[in-house]
Amino acid sequence: MNINALEKIALSVRALSMDAIQKATSGHPGLPLGAAELGAFLYGDLLRQDPQDPSWPDRDRFVLSAGHGSMFLYSLLYLAGYQDITLEDIKGFRQLGSHAAGHPEYGLVQGIETTTGPLGQGIATAVGMAVAETMLAARFNTKTRTIVDHYTYVLVGDGCLQEGVSAEASSLAGHLKLGKLIVFYDSNRITIDGSTDLAFTEAVAQRYEAYGWQVLKGSMYDFEALARLTAEAKAETTKPSLIILNSVIGKGAPHKENTPDVHGAPLGAEEVAATKAALGIPEDFYVAPEAAAYFTVKQAEWKELHAAWQEEFNAWSQENPDKRSEWNRFYAGTAAPGVLPRFAPGDSLATRSAGNKALVALAAANTNLVGGSADLKGPNAVGLPDAAGVYSPTNRGGRYIHFGIREFAMAAIANGISLHGGLRAFCATFMVFSDYLRPALRLSALMKQPIIYVFTHDSIFVGEDGPTHQPIEHLASFRIIPGLLTLRPADAEETAEAWAWALERQDGPTILALSRQNLKVFPKEDPDWKNTLRTGAYVVRKGAESPDLVLIATGSELTLALEAADQVPGKVRVVSMISRERFEAQPKAVQETILPAGVRVICCEAGVKTGWERWAKPEDIFSIDRFGESGPANQVAQSLGFTAHALAALMKAKLPSG
Amino acid sequence: MNINALEKIALSVRALSMDAIQKATSGHPGLPLGAAELGAFLYGDLLRQDPQDPSWPDRDRFVLSAGHGSMFLYSLLYLAGYQDITLEDIKGFRQLGSHAAGHPEYGLVQGIETTTGPLGQGIATAVGMAVAETMLAARFNTKTRTIVDHYTYVLVGDGCLQEGVSAEASSLAGHLKLGKLIVFYDSNRITIDGSTDLAFTEAVAQRYEAYGWQVLKGSMYDFEALARLTAEAKAETTKPSLIILNSVIGKGAPHKENTPDVHGAPLGAEEVAATKAALGIPEDFYVAPEAAAYFTVKQAEWKELHAAWQEEFNAWSQENPDKRSEWNRFYAGTAAPGVLPRFAPGDSLATRSAGNKALVALAAANTNLVGGSADLKGPNAVGLPDAAGVYSPTNRGGRYIHFGIREFAMAAIANGISLHGGLRAFCATFMVFSDYLRPALRLSALMKQPIIYVFTHDSIFVGEDGPTHQPIEHLASFRIIPGLLTLRPADAEETAEAWAWALERQDGPTILALSRQNLKVFPKEDPDWKNTLRTGAYVVRKGAESPDLVLIATGSELTLALEAADQVPGKVRVVSMISRERFEAQPKAVQETILPAGVRVICCEAGVKTGWERWAKPEDIFSIDRFGESGPANQVAQSLGFTAHALAALMKAKLPSG
Repeated sequence: MNINALEKIALSVRALSMDAIQKATSGHPGLPLGAAELGAFLYGDLLRQDPQDPSWPDRDRFVLSAGHGSMFLYSLLYLAGYQDITLEDIKGFRQLGSHAAGHPEYGLVQGIETTTGPLGQGIATAVGMAVAETMLAARFNTKTRTIVDHYTYVLVGDGCLQEGVSAEASSLAGHLKLGKLIVFYDSNRITIDGSTDLAFTEAVAQRYEAYGWQVLKGSMYDFEALARLTAEAKAETTKPSLIILNSVIGKGAPHKENTPDVHGAPLGAEEVAATKAALGIPEDFYVAPEAAAYFTVKQAEWKELHAAWQEEFNAWSQENPDKRSEWNRFYAGTAAPGVLPRFAPGDSLATRSAGNKALVALAAANTNLVGGSADLKGPNAVGLPDAAGVYSPTNRGGRYIHFGIREFAMAAIANGISLHGGLRAFCATFMVFSDYLRPALRLSALMKQPIIYVFTHDSIFVGEDGPTHQPIEHLASFRIIPGLLTLRPADAEETAEAWAWALERQDGPTILALSRQNLKVFPKEDPDWKNTLRTGAYVVRKGAESPDLVLIATGSELTLALEAADQVPGKVRVVSMISRERFEAQPKAVQETILPAGVRVICCEAGVKTGWERWAKPEDIFSIDRFGESGPANQVAQSLGFTAHALAALMKAKLPSG
Repeated sequence: MNINALEKIALSVRALSMDAIQKATSGHPGLPLGAAELGAFLYGDLLRQDPQDPSWPDRDRFVLSAGHGSMFLYSLLYLAGYQDITLEDIKGFRQLGSHAAGHPEYGLVQGIETTTGPLGQGIATAVGMAVAETMLAARFNTKTRTIVDHYTYVLVGDGCLQEGVSAEASSLAGHLKLGKLIVFYDSNRITIDGSTDLAFTEAVAQRYEAYGWQVLKGSMYDFEALARLTAEAKAETTKPSLIILNSVIGKGAPHKENTPDVHGAPLGAEEVAATKAALGIPEDFYVAPEAAAYFTVKQAEWKELHAAWQEEFNAWSQENPDKRSEWNRFYAGTAAPGVLPRFAPGDSLATRSAGNKALVALAAANTNLVGGSADLKGPNAVGLPDAAGVYSPTNRGGRYIHFGIREFAMAAIANGISLHGGLRAFCATFMVFSDYLRPALRLSALMKQPIIYVFTHDSIFVGEDGPTHQPIEHLASFRIIPGLLTLRPADAEETAEAWAWALERQDGPTILALSRQNLKVFPKEDPDWKNTLRTGAYVVRKGAESPDLVLIATGSELTLALEAADQVPGKVRVVSMISRERFEAQPKAVQETILPAGVRVICCEAGVKTGWERWAKPEDIFSIDRFGESGPANQVAQSLGFTAHALAALMKAKLPSG
């Protein structure tokens, strides 16, 4: 370890960070200044990476969970030689188009492994990355060749450790004995409101020991300690490690360090000058020559590491052609179509059950599909065949994950598994509890990760469990998240197509909204319905070339719609709209093949009206705009006036003859 | 302690629960059977309550955090003599109209202190109740008279303790040294998926000790131990207590106890019969005569306890007329109007800053208003005057609560404070992080609790922090929750009115959506605008009796709208729609005073289009339907095409002359 060089790297991190933040007149200097030594140690010594070819699958991962300290990461990525972040980006910190965005954004710089900023999620996502590493290692390493063997490092602050999602994920990480997950805790004891004494006085070390972690302690400002502690963390292979580093927020700023002022506002020109004077920083956006020189050498070393791995990988490929083919499939970014289950009109089963048949079929064809439920394996119907195995410390090759009753961590972990590369992730809970994981769902969408969210029990037809378990506003709440695809199939046949669609999708998350109750498979008049479905809607029953009325329904309400249409004398067209947002993105001409211009439309969905007004007048939307109630499903529907009979009455009133 | 009677109570809980669930063919027998002894001890011995007059403000609170075990609670409430739950309700468990709903619903039975079912929230809500108790005790008790002095008891299961929200709330409860919070942990080590060994193997006791709790352990089935442990818990007055009770899920069911089968499905007729035979239960819906007789005596004791308190309260009232007046104000359920801050056209300030002035004014007039932020006191601008004090273990009279970086627990605790009675609660965070607390927001709405949610930084105009911090879908996500009122004031004057409105509201939660950026107070043509505002919208600038175009905007976009209107030659009416859902609830005639029939409407809001289609064609909605980006606010707006200039261009194209 070249301590002198590391010191110069730390100095450069401080210099770049304070200048970038000052120039932007916006940002968070507290962390980059306070944790610069850890950054120098990570990027200057610890991480196994190749900044000039950063997609190296076996690289170590680093997650800045305290994403507001983004200049910490940008400074280091720039110094280490990542190509897609330049000094111009840093000088343009927090300006439009700069890769040095306000918070680290996945996709802007290859060294940014996940988008962070929403606190607590970085560490939870990192748990997913560590899970992925063990899964891939189990699948691909052989007795003689190791091609998957890397660490997942995280930096958390006081904020991340107060958030519930980090607690959920840490408890699970301890349970799963993720020995290659190493978390550094920048313990500066200052948050925006002031000292952590105001609200956060628990014994963090003891809590993490309770989770089954190894906990180590030291100073942020002692490189030898950082090295020793990290070695101890690596030596403990059956527990994740938390390394608590006592630190000083904003360290180096003579008048502001160790105060909340330095957390989230620029130092100010005067304090920047004072800091530079105190630290001996001679110029703006200073990079110490020793740091630059050090990284030039380091880059060559990293290149060699990478080349050595490539050599091993090549030898492994030659020795294990089947594994190599599987590897290629894992990393191809496309899914195998599989043999979807077949259903026929008259079959009666819940779409969750049909979903399970599709999942099982697709999981057989895509052995990189992994996931599970938040303790609702049976109710969500997301079990995999026994052969897929349960993921555990003693069975890293298992593909079913028992996430426990931890919805939010589940979704964040799914993000991490997906971000890691090589694997596809699904996760599941009751639809109403999507609220618990919504912040991670948003990040899936923002990062365009193709997570498959299976949300069953998707309406008041849940019945007895009552309003706490009956989604009302949830379908509407999904459709407004940019980049998220919500599919609500109406019967078993549509469900199989929906699963295939979700798995094909590469550029964002998909929700499968599935019923608890049985639904009959209905006949489809359009022979090409499976293709038309992909426009977001298709005609189930044509009614006539020129219908009097079009009835749009989604999911289980298709059954209700068909029943109601049978009770109505006029020419009624029935449309299944599996994805409203996808349909809304179609050209008008396509939309009009489904909904002929000028024909009155009635919409039917067991949820709030909002959003359907684009297609129907408010009074023509058959919706539920209040919380549900507890009772057998049909009685609840009756009580809420949500029946085929009531829908038929509405339709009759709207028909030309009505 | 009458152990024989308690045993008979436990027997009756088992009998009633299994029969009710079996009759409903739906429900969760595992907890009521497994924890019946604790129930008997709670309702037969421990709780200080008055079932025949349950609104007694100084009653002990009990929260069944594991809400799926609802028959546990119903059995006990019925046995204890709560009037609004009958044997018919229990026989109608999970049927429409029964007070014995699938999960305990606040409002159906007075002994149900909060709605539970969504796991983890019960204990977090209970923390709020315990906070409220200390606040009221500090304010009202005197050296010689104690009128507020009760305990908050909770029953949690393995599920609640896995959820992040319970972790957040428990950490804060330890920090706050809530000595009168006592949590019983029904540790049966079984969840839906199977053994807790699958996903939950942490050392719970050690974790709670790390939070600063006292942790005690014993058996569920030893009444003397229950009494001794509870006494120890009460003796520790500076720490909350967790009492871990080893238990057997479904205890008493000879073939199903201690298996996941018994968690969430009826026992089945055969096992019910076997259980009855094993336990000596002679008939359906059996209540042991000894249990009934015991509660008859107990009711008289409770009546006496209540009467004694009433006597003390009367004496206290006489000795402390000022305190008694304040007490009356606290419990009146109405807010004092206060002296709202005044602003004038031309004043320029962020609505968050105006909100602070209103909050300070209203907090002065309403000394029962308490709350705080999730570590964003300054950024959210929700600080109270120093005189209001900071709530802490050494200052129970303080009214500002530092919740820490724990949004979800914050909202659940606010629910608990409100449910307790006597206090009004507000809480605050950045709007984008409303996602973190959404499950508790939903419960506020479901329980009709008048929590005030202050969500600042309400649009892409946050700027530099980037897409993780810029709300896009959030306003739309609020408006779809039944019973929630979303107010997005457009300038400082509207903000003061919005705060007053929120505080007046008694029957549900209100969101105040406030800007980070400064906004000029604009002149209002309608002299009666403050009244008209309450319809959800009012005319800011009339344009003409018969305008060519109506431009609807909300919040900070009003400023943009006025600017755009200035650039357009036609007769444009500008409308501020502070609450779309309120406006949509108005009769058509009222709506048409604002939006004349037949006039083209353009809507402008810095968020998704969804929901505005009711009022304008999709192409006439000036919205943002993608994630934001990092940069100075105006540049972000420019990049997204969200400028007055672009809005004016849209308007021009729609004008008759366009």
